[in-house]
Amino acid sequence: MPDQAILLLSGGMDSTTLLYHLRQTIPETPLHTVSIDYAQRHRIELNFAARLSQLAGASSHRVLPLDLKQIGGSPLTDPDLDVPAASEQAQVTTVVPFRNMLLVTLAAACGERLGAFDIYLSPVRDDHEAYRDCRREFYDSLEESLRLGATRDTPFTIHTPLVDYSKADVVALGMKLGVPYELTHTCYAGTRPACGVCDACSERLNAFGELHATDPLDYEQRPAL
Amino acid sequence: MPDQAILLLSGGMDSTTLLYHLRQTIPETPLHTVSIDYAQRHRIELNFAARLSQLAGASSHRVLPLDLKQIGGSPLTDPDLDVPAASEQAQVTTVVPFRNMLLVTLAAACGERLGAFDIYLSPVRDDHEAYRDCRREFYDSLEESLRLGATRDTPFTIHTPLVDYSKADVVALGMKLGVPYELTHTCYAGTRPACGVCDACSERLNAFGELHATDPLDYEQRPAL
Repeated sequence: MPDQAILLLSGGMDSTTLLYHLRQTIPETPLHTVSIDYAQRHRIELNFAARLSQLAGASSHRVLPLDLKQIGGSPLTDPDLDVPAASEQAQVTTVVPFRNMLLVTLAAACGERLGAFDIYLSPVRDDHEAYRDCRREFYDSLEESLRLGATRDTPFTIHTPLVDYSKADVVALGMKLGVPYELTHTCYAGTRPACGVCDACSERLNAFGELHATDPLDYEQRPAL
Repeated sequence: MPDQAILLLSGGMDSTTLLYHLRQTIPETPLHTVSIDYAQRHRIELNFAARLSQLAGASSHRVLPLDLKQIGGSPLTDPDLDVPAASEQAQVTTVVPFRNMLLVTLAAACGERLGAFDIYLSPVRDDHEAYRDCRREFYDSLEESLRLGATRDTPFTIHTPLVDYSKADVVALGMKLGVPYELTHTCYAGTRPACGVCDACSERLNAFGELHATDPLDYEQRPAL
C-alpha cells in the first residue's frame, strides 16, 4: 500500500469511479487529487472535481493551470472549433496532443513535493482506439521516463486499474460503490444539462444503457439507444 | 535532414549556441523556436529568446505559458526562496521538477500541429550531475514515450547534439559561429547586469575563463577565477 497517492481527477465518470474505488481499496492511504485547468471548453468539470474530492474524503485537492489553448487544433480547447456530434467523430478529432502525458508529468512534479510517488489515473479500454495515450504500453514507457527524469532516482508508479474496463464496466463498478454520478461532468460542450449528442455524452449514455440503468444526470436530449 | 524542426530556446548560452549551430548545419530546414514562460524568476530571458530567434532567422518563435509556480519548491520559480550562490549549491537545489520533460512534451504538442517531429534542445555534460533530466538516457526514454503517446504513430526524434559538450566546449563552438553572447541571458537572479555569483553565472564565467576568453556580458561583479 503506498504511503501517499495522487489521483488525476477530471470530475468525469471514469476518474470519479476510480476515486471511490480507491477510497475502498486503499482507505488508509492519504489521497491527493489533482485536476488540471487546461483551458478546456468543459472546465465546469473542475467545480465537480472539487466537490467530489471533498465528498469522498480526499486529503487535498488542487487545480493546476496548463494553458493548452495556445497549442490549439482540438475543439476541446479551441473555442473556434465546434465539438463534433458522436456521428461525426471519424472526421473531427477531439484529441488534445499529449494531454495525458502533460497531466501525468505535472502530477509527478506535485508528487515530488508531496513525497507521493504513486500516481493513479483512469484511462479505460473504450478509449484505446481514439486516444493512443490511454493504452497501458504508453504508461509503462512514461513510468520509465519519470524515473529517469526525476530529481532523484525515485521509482514512480503509474497505476491505471481501469485500463481494461469498458465504460459499462466502470458504471457497473461505480453503482456498486455508490458513486454520485449526478455530480460528475462528462459533456464536451461543457453545458448543464449535458448536450446528450457529443461523443462523450453518447458513450456515457450507451454505458448506462448497456446495463439497463438510468444515468441520473440531466440531458438536453437523450438519443434513443 | 528534417522537413521542419523545433528548437527549445531559453535565450541562454547553450540553446542560443545550438540555434546558431543549426542555422549552419541544417540551414534549409524551417526552424521553429519555442520558449516557455514557466514563471521563472529570470523570465527576462524570454525577451532575449525572441530577439535571438529573429536575428538568427528562425521561421517562427512562440512563447508557451506553463505555470510551475504552483508546484513550487525551487528558487527559480518561488519568489519566497533565495537563489543560492554557487558556493551554497550543495545545500539548495535549483531543480524544477520535470521541467525538461514538460518542455519537450509541450514542444511535441506544438510539433504535431506544425508537422515538425524533430525536436532539438541543449542539455550539456556539465548539467548531468545536478540535473538528471539532462542525460541522454532520459531523452531516449522520452522519445519512446512521445512515440507511444502521440495522436498517430509518429516517430518523434529528440536531438541533443551538445549533450557531451562541457560549457567551455559550447562557448568554443559559439565563438566560432559568431554567437552574440551579449544578447543571451544566463543569470538565475534575472538581473541585467547579471549577478555574477549565482550558480548559472558562475558556470558561465568559468567556461569563458577556461578558454581565456572574455564574456561580453555586463556583470555586477566578476569573481576572480
